[in-house]
Amino acid sequence: MAVVSLTTDFGSSDFEIGSVSAVVLSRAPEAKIADLTHDVPPQNVLDAAVILSRHVFYFPPNSVHVVVVDPGVGTIRRPIAAQLGDQYFVGPDNGVMTLLYQYAKNNNLPIKIVHTNKSEFWLSDVSNIFHGRDIFASVGGFLAAGYDIEDLGEVITDPVLLDIPQASISQDYISGQIMRIDHFGNLESNIDQRLLKGREVVSVQIKNRKIDGLVKTFGDKVNGELVSMIDSSGVISVCVVNGSAANDLQANTGDTIELSLKIV
Amino acid sequence: MAVVSLTTDFGSSDFEIGSVSAVVLSRAPEAKIADLTHDVPPQNVLDAAVILSRHVFYFPPNSVHVVVVDPGVGTIRRPIAAQLGDQYFVGPDNGVMTLLYQYAKNNNLPIKIVHTNKSEFWLSDVSNIFHGRDIFASVGGFLAAGYDIEDLGEVITDPVLLDIPQASISQDYISGQIMRIDHFGNLESNIDQRLLKGREVVSVQIKNRKIDGLVKTFGDKVNGELVSMIDSSGVISVCVVNGSAANDLQANTGDTIELSLKIV
Amino acid sequence: MAVVSLTTDFGSSDFEIGSVSAVVLSRAPEAKIADLTHDVPPQNVLDAAVILSRHVFYFPPNSVHVVVVDPGVGTIRRPIAAQLGDQYFVGPDNGVMTLLYQYAKNNNLPIKIVHTNKSEFWLSDVSNIFHGRDIFASVGGFLAAGYDIEDLGEVITDPVLLDIPQASISQDYISGQIMRIDHFGNLESNIDQRLLKGREVVSVQIKNRKIDGLVKTFGDKVNGELVSMIDSSGVISVCVVNGSAANDLQANTGDTIELSLKIV
Repeated sequence: MAVVSLTTDFGSSDFEIGSVSAVVLSRAPEAKIADLTHDVPPQNVLDAAVILSRHVFYFPPNSVHVVVVDPGVGTIRRPIAAQLGDQYFVGPDNGVMTLLYQYAKNNNLPIKIVHTNKSEFWLSDVSNIFHGRDIFASVGGFLAAGYDIEDLGEVITDPVLLDIPQASISQDYISGQIMRIDHFGNLESNIDQRLLKGREVVSVQIKNRKIDGLVKTFGDKVNGELVSMIDSSGVISVCVVNGSAANDLQANTGDTIELSLKIV
Repeated sequence: MAVVSLTTDFGSSDFEIGSVSAVVLSRAPEAKIADLTHDVPPQNVLDAAVILSRHVFYFPPNSVHVVVVDPGVGTIRRPIAAQLGDQYFVGPDNGVMTLLYQYAKNNNLPIKIVHTNKSEFWLSDVSNIFHGRDIFASVGGFLAAGYDIEDLGEVITDPVLLDIPQASISQDYISGQIMRIDHFGNLESNIDQRLLKGREVVSVQIKNRKIDGLVKTFGDKVNGELVSMIDSSGVISVCVVNGSAANDLQANTGDTIELSLKIV
Repeated sequence: MAVVSLTTDFGSSDFEIGSVSAVVLSRAPEAKIADLTHDVPPQNVLDAAVILSRHVFYFPPNSVHVVVVDPGVGTIRRPIAAQLGDQYFVGPDNGVMTLLYQYAKNNNLPIKIVHTNKSEFWLSDVSNIFHGRDIFASVGGFLAAGYDIEDLGEVITDPVLLDIPQASISQDYISGQIMRIDHFGNLESNIDQRLLKGREVVSVQIKNRKIDGLVKTFGDKVNGELVSMIDSSGVISVCVVNGSAANDLQANTGDTIELSLKIV
């Protein structure tokens, strides 16, 4: 019984969740729907890309991840589906699967991408503005029902990929940037812990504030204190204990974060 | 394995979702629960009616739609269940199923409505203020478990129906009104595209603003522009590209929208 | 097919729901996930405890309730699992299951609590700040897959319990306090209807306002009126009909509520 997860910017007060769930279940009555988030900031493809990268590879094999963050709906952007390791992605070809793709590539997992242009796998009436229901949910349902991904469209090798900012690294210094801000106001950077390569963080500089080293957990400091830590996704983050670093620092996505390192 | 969908005004931070899910599953352990929305504006029966009409008929046959938007709970309003085509509705007899009923009627689908007054299908203790859990979830669970709708109550033929405003139509003009505002601030009217009967929309007038014709999709215009289009439910809507028409126009449910048409 | 319910303070816009769902399903592919609420006020253990007490015992036997409201994550607080009657709890040992425990005890239901310290039932990499995914979801998944609770850790008998405020009772008077405020602004007290023992409520005093007696349902009064009633969980609550008692009274959790009673 395949899992079909939904990651969208529908919000929670409208009819779109119902429509997409209905179409998935009409194609794959045995599928299990998992609502991951419907509160991606509207049309924020990068935010959705980061969220997906945080959990997709924890899912059981053959899970199907339908993603509807689709500012280009109705234009010439392609609808696609992708096998990335043992997980499946269905959504718009706008780069939202970039980090999943890079993960699969970096780990030598199988990758197959198709342009889901076979309209027999869509709803019979396709609107210009809701491919989430009319194409992605339908294609995702067929995948969950056991169809081979190559049945659903033509293989392509040129998916749109986002230009994800990379951290710049020297012997005693890493400069990165804030990739996303979570709902607690924690600042997630693009500096993965693996970039430290065993070096110790002496200090973290962000928005004219300097933080000494990393803490292991929030419990190490008192409420209101600004701290930096390796978060649960393994990236350097900046947080206020039981507070909002985004508010306290007036920080935004794209802000610079700098680490001073020493070899231990 | 029947789907039981939930459409409520519970919000997302309380215990009611848990209670209703629990009771459904205790009656129908094999049922699959689909949370459609719990963010209907509190006690807004019309809004729930419109939302339901947008997705119910996409669901697989024999899906059960439990609706808890129930300002009259504890008064003499009846609890009802209805078969509408191959879908089932369970909820209060307050008109919230009006558009589903009209759809079934207009399409000559089977209709059967029962007053679910047999307390052996309720929870043993029924509160005065939470029939969502105590009656609707329980009855919905029994339906999902395969009970015949006529087992659950007495057939009635006089359900409460909302007086849904209808568009007024002439040869080169349609006047309608805004039925609901979605979470992006898009304005959904009561003018279905079928009312156009092949005529072309020359202009759309709303709140002293005049919009030239319809666009096919948001991508046709730039951010911030006011546009009108046929939305994914097939009705004329007014939107701001990547913005909120409700805010920009200070528009509300009930506002007039007027189309000038020409024969093509 | 076991139900695994989730009650968390994750909010709805982040990756945590996805991660926890994924780990549960990777351990128990047949499990059914029920998202009860992800909007517990951040780290508000008491609020989560009250919400859980409102619905857990409606679930089918052998349901597993994973609770992630965990301000002490990464400190020495223990991860635990508990059998409480025919329901299972998995979460931090911070008192969040207090009311479930007391219910089980008061009703002589079976109780078994284990310190889930066997890391073979965790994810292989355990972060310091997300035990919801790395420990609780994994352990909850194993329970849902049929493992015996005693397989998962060492039995303990000293769980952390919250000091829940108790109502004080005399012959013609009960004094209690507001335990939680729901999303409508209704004030839920710690005075259970069973404490009335057949006596009638003459008046309810709160924040210098005096309310005459109890109403049976909202429909008994007009919009905007301040009323008191026995709510759907069986406790005395204070509400404004189609409004917010919390706003109108500027009331908060912990405020005193006093009932004058007479013998009938």
